[in-house]
Amino acid sequence: MKTINVGLVGITGYAGMELARLLAGHPAMRLAMACSRAEAGKRLGEFYPFLEHMPGADVVISVFEPKEAAQHCDLVFLAVPAGTAMDMAGPLLDAGVKVVDLSADFRIHDAGVYERWYKHEHHGKDLLRWAVYGLPELYAADIAQTSLTANPGCYPTSVILGLYAALKNKLIEPDDIVVDSKSGATGAGRKAAVPTLFCEVSDNFRAYGLPRHRHTPEIEQEVSLLAGHEVRLSFNTHLLPMNRGILSTIYTKLRDPAATLDSVHEAFLRTWEHSPWIRVLPKGALPETRYVRGSMFCDIGLVVDPRTKRLIILAAIDNLCRGASGQALANANLMCGLPVNAGLEHLAPLA
Amino acid sequence: MKTINVGLVGITGYAGMELARLLAGHPAMRLAMACSRAEAGKRLGEFYPFLEHMPGADVVISVFEPKEAAQHCDLVFLAVPAGTAMDMAGPLLDAGVKVVDLSADFRIHDAGVYERWYKHEHHGKDLLRWAVYGLPELYAADIAQTSLTANPGCYPTSVILGLYAALKNKLIEPDDIVVDSKSGATGAGRKAAVPTLFCEVSDNFRAYGLPRHRHTPEIEQEVSLLAGHEVRLSFNTHLLPMNRGILSTIYTKLRDPAATLDSVHEAFLRTWEHSPWIRVLPKGALPETRYVRGSMFCDIGLVVDPRTKRLIILAAIDNLCRGASGQALANANLMCGLPVNAGLEHLAPLA
Amino acid sequence: MKTINVGLVGITGYAGMELARLLAGHPAMRLAMACSRAEAGKRLGEFYPFLEHMPGADVVISVFEPKEAAQHCDLVFLAVPAGTAMDMAGPLLDAGVKVVDLSADFRIHDAGVYERWYKHEHHGKDLLRWAVYGLPELYAADIAQTSLTANPGCYPTSVILGLYAALKNKLIEPDDIVVDSKSGATGAGRKAAVPTLFCEVSDNFRAYGLPRHRHTPEIEQEVSLLAGHEVRLSFNTHLLPMNRGILSTIYTKLRDPAATLDSVHEAFLRTWEHSPWIRVLPKGALPETRYVRGSMFCDIGLVVDPRTKRLIILAAIDNLCRGASGQALANANLMCGLPVNAGLEHLAPLA
Amino acid sequence: MKTINVGLVGITGYAGMELARLLAGHPAMRLAMACSRAEAGKRLGEFYPFLEHMPGADVVISVFEPKEAAQHCDLVFLAVPAGTAMDMAGPLLDAGVKVVDLSADFRIHDAGVYERWYKHEHHGKDLLRWAVYGLPELYAADIAQTSLTANPGCYPTSVILGLYAALKNKLIEPDDIVVDSKSGATGAGRKAAVPTLFCEVSDNFRAYGLPRHRHTPEIEQEVSLLAGHEVRLSFNTHLLPMNRGILSTIYTKLRDPAATLDSVHEAFLRTWEHSPWIRVLPKGALPETRYVRGSMFCDIGLVVDPRTKRLIILAAIDNLCRGASGQALANANLMCGLPVNAGLEHLAPLA
Repeated sequence: MKTINVGLVGITGYAGMELARLLAGHPAMRLAMACSRAEAGKRLGEFYPFLEHMPGADVVISVFEPKEAAQHCDLVFLAVPAGTAMDMAGPLLDAGVKVVDLSADFRIHDAGVYERWYKHEHHGKDLLRWAVYGLPELYAADIAQTSLTANPGCYPTSVILGLYAALKNKLIEPDDIVVDSKSGATGAGRKAAVPTLFCEVSDNFRAYGLPRHRHTPEIEQEVSLLAGHEVRLSFNTHLLPMNRGILSTIYTKLRDPAATLDSVHEAFLRTWEHSPWIRVLPKGALPETRYVRGSMFCDIGLVVDPRTKRLIILAAIDNLCRGASGQALANANLMCGLPVNAGLEHLAPLA
Repeated sequence: MKTINVGLVGITGYAGMELARLLAGHPAMRLAMACSRAEAGKRLGEFYPFLEHMPGADVVISVFEPKEAAQHCDLVFLAVPAGTAMDMAGPLLDAGVKVVDLSADFRIHDAGVYERWYKHEHHGKDLLRWAVYGLPELYAADIAQTSLTANPGCYPTSVILGLYAALKNKLIEPDDIVVDSKSGATGAGRKAAVPTLFCEVSDNFRAYGLPRHRHTPEIEQEVSLLAGHEVRLSFNTHLLPMNRGILSTIYTKLRDPAATLDSVHEAFLRTWEHSPWIRVLPKGALPETRYVRGSMFCDIGLVVDPRTKRLIILAAIDNLCRGASGQALANANLMCGLPVNAGLEHLAPLA
Repeated sequence: MKTINVGLVGITGYAGMELARLLAGHPAMRLAMACSRAEAGKRLGEFYPFLEHMPGADVVISVFEPKEAAQHCDLVFLAVPAGTAMDMAGPLLDAGVKVVDLSADFRIHDAGVYERWYKHEHHGKDLLRWAVYGLPELYAADIAQTSLTANPGCYPTSVILGLYAALKNKLIEPDDIVVDSKSGATGAGRKAAVPTLFCEVSDNFRAYGLPRHRHTPEIEQEVSLLAGHEVRLSFNTHLLPMNRGILSTIYTKLRDPAATLDSVHEAFLRTWEHSPWIRVLPKGALPETRYVRGSMFCDIGLVVDPRTKRLIILAAIDNLCRGASGQALANANLMCGLPVNAGLEHLAPLA
Repeated sequence: MKTINVGLVGITGYAGMELARLLAGHPAMRLAMACSRAEAGKRLGEFYPFLEHMPGADVVISVFEPKEAAQHCDLVFLAVPAGTAMDMAGPLLDAGVKVVDLSADFRIHDAGVYERWYKHEHHGKDLLRWAVYGLPELYAADIAQTSLTANPGCYPTSVILGLYAALKNKLIEPDDIVVDSKSGATGAGRKAAVPTLFCEVSDNFRAYGLPRHRHTPEIEQEVSLLAGHEVRLSFNTHLLPMNRGILSTIYTKLRDPAATLDSVHEAFLRTWEHSPWIRVLPKGALPETRYVRGSMFCDIGLVVDPRTKRLIILAAIDNLCRGASGQALANANLMCGLPVNAGLEHLAPLA
């Protein structure tokens, strides 16, 4: 493969850290630029000791400049907050640099919906029509054609992948869905803050963001597309005392009250049979976050409760890898004509 | 207060350990007998080093004998598995010893339901009519009169207390309830087993027991009594990578779609105003398991989602204290004519 | 007992939180004032939800004013950073208020040593001669007489209590001591900072502060007093991925190479026989931090290695209770003529 | 590269699990046989859900038979308890199969020493002279020539690599070394046992095995070889509430009391300059276990304490990867003529 030079803006957060890790093992991509205003001037290996003696360790962190980026990079990952990415993407695209945006800025097709949930103006509206929602199982062909991929949110990745086969096969009522999601603490970001200190999170469990988590509109957008009409659902998030992993427990009502686990399971297997990253578990098995750690896998477990006529779907992903940086890399692979799983084939320690 | 001599059968499990801890600080109860077949002959302080230099440390662990118990104890706590307690209770009651049973054996009024969910015969059916379900907020007067209290399960305690005000005030549809509960690992017991090893639970999150957790009929019994008709609900459990605490996220449909957080919150406050262990949180606040650690508190948070017309109730308890041993002690207090909170007034470390 | 009104300056840190917890269960002390510049105006129960429905919840947080303090308090706990306490103590003492200072400001008798290690000037030198080092087992009589107690550091408490019997009985060479201490993360304080975020501490272990941790001079001061000459030792600290607890593994050389575990153990037992908080473990047993959680206990384990002629002393304490706030309360009890263990008799959950 | 067929005996332990993970990403090795008496008959992907959709998932677990092994495997990893491996190695070697033994059976050159520490007879004494101690940095040439590699213990790997440069350059007194090691709980194995349950290890810290941990003679053997005379040292172990990682804090006396951090650091850098897996940290930096997770790195930090004339060496490794299965794979690579780091080039998630 020929070398693809990539840049990474927002090196200090957990998504940036995870991308630096994955890029160090990528067979074709080379980290050519790493940006952070706060840490500019340091060698990357100095800032991230785990990178020493690995590819990328000698990159010197710099302040983001679109021109510099255009000179050194074929593609840039934006791992910056929502509201910031929308201003960085334009100049890069204008200069012919492909962009994978890990923020929420280009995920919501309707700028009005975005502004209502994110509480700030969208000043990149003209770019929205070029942006592709970067869920490879659903939109691989479009991703391969675009220069701007909107990398999905971590929770939405788990929920949309979890619901996809049920909606596609019309197994459930789209208008009576409750999602109870739980995430590891890397999802809360790497800002210095008392509520995410070790001693506040450890040995503790709590919900947060109810009832208006910002990932709601993103989930509703994709679920509505699948259902064929506008859907509202209840999406609720909790913080787990662990670093990585999302488990979404999705409560749905079966359309056919007589549906069995056998029939539901078979529909899921059929739907995903050509998607190696989706592992529909055997009947009776339930997913565990550790089994997907550091990977692109989405493990799906199915429960049919004949007492309440519900189908409960459990979907587990790694919030940083599948839910952010790994998925960004998969999208970049597609955009650059590489195999989608380049640099993503290795298993991480699970215990 | 005069001294009450108590016995504790099943000292080696987490409920037994927690009772030993609480009894060491009780102003009127004295641990007169501690039983375990496996550890008989050891001093309690030798088996539990945390007890050394504290009341109870010098008790020698013995094998349970009803006659011995009757000779030394006014009341016995049974912290043994379901199926075992039903055989121990009779002889104790016959000998005039009060019993608080921490197992499930006397919680379900209908022995047929018990047998269907617990998969073994109930051979203490004649005692069922004497047993009182030991939730002090609901049944204090009956508990004070009985000699046999069935201590509630940990999950049911959180769910029933969480739902009580909503059902009592007819705020929700009783037939569309989904409970998503999460528990710390002490809930899984203290048996040597690979799935509960540190390295299997740590950094991991998973559901278990779906869709037929044994606590379901106990919850449905009490919810049905409150609703006035037989209710089926969806009850689902998850294992948290932490020691203690249950958070139940309870999804309900509002009967009045125009109900507001204000009105719901006020109804909850009113219902619980004379129950010091129930803390209805301020509007906007959500419970955290750490805030109830080692205590009898049940912290309740309320969320009204006008988009989906749902009331989400979040209830947090300590699964070992409020959900087992502390509640057993409160019931014992009531049965012995002591203040319900004797020995239960102290706060545990929360960080 | 008559009521003692106490104030607490520095309510937001972990030591302040722990004191608030302990005071809520104290039979004679009443929290009359709680100070924090940042949180002034809030009810304490609002700031600390775990305190709601408990004594102290209704205190309104205020900005520290010596005059206000003198008006409302018999005694004030200073849980503020080193360098700040030295300015607060004087005005309080002048106004007749007793002071327990949890900072390092009055621990080191020699102001020059203090200034060398803490890198700032000591401008409370005149108060130093009144200050008593608040280790109750060593200095109870003096503490009972003073108005200013310097509450010991967490690590020094474990090390000095661990070494005391060995030095007192001249079992070891005082000039060849290596201390390898490990602490839970509450010891790192409650400041918003990236290195103490959950995701940085969890699943991680590291040393810090080597080779010049500020607790070194405090340990050397007390060890030198015991040895009868000036001692230098190697004191080294590590951060554990857990909230509470210190274990100090203390490596010493036996003076008598033929000394046995029997003889050493007996000397320790004899030395501590009248100190209920010091638990010298049975021969062969080793301390665990969980067994002392939330308590005043110091558990001591002894290992004699005949191959290397070393005595290894392992001392475990709770860094927040025995190592800070519990010890402060014990000192306050002594200063106010109360039983030393008032409010400190309860066991915390250990699993 | 041509395909090397390998077998793995002892699939159910953490070392077996880690080898299965690493082999799934190895460019030349193919898992041809996986043995476990207890789990025979299951597909590996069924037993280890994380392996599904990865190489190796379809291997059916079998009972170990040397003849079967010889038929299907070029090399076999023995991840079985000490005492068992010694009986399995002979038949394999006789049949021309190379062996990497992860147990202690062939690490100690002197069978008498082995028998004294391991408390059972060594009935593979004739094989001892063929066994090479598998520390690649020290013995790569010998490993490449042998058919039987004794894979080092986890603790010894950290301690020997930590001390190597100091001893080689005669910087320290070999006869006054104290090692304080701390390990994650995977080091305690995957047997069902109460002391390693989640709730017993979590939030807890303790020492164990003092003063006679079985890894002592292995460390002393290699340190003695480096020192040129028989050395006894104090080696002490502790259990961390986390899954993976060892940090050894090694206390030594400087031979030259005037030695500086500069000179020591330079000697370490020089010694390891051609060893990419050994990362001597910059002066002032200290290792963290998370930075080596899932890797072959050994991170070394250096502290010179002029007050006590000590050199403190801190060495961090991943106990399962560098300390067991990754090192076994590196040794297998050498024995099969592959690059030593084949299959070991990827970084694992660190947060």
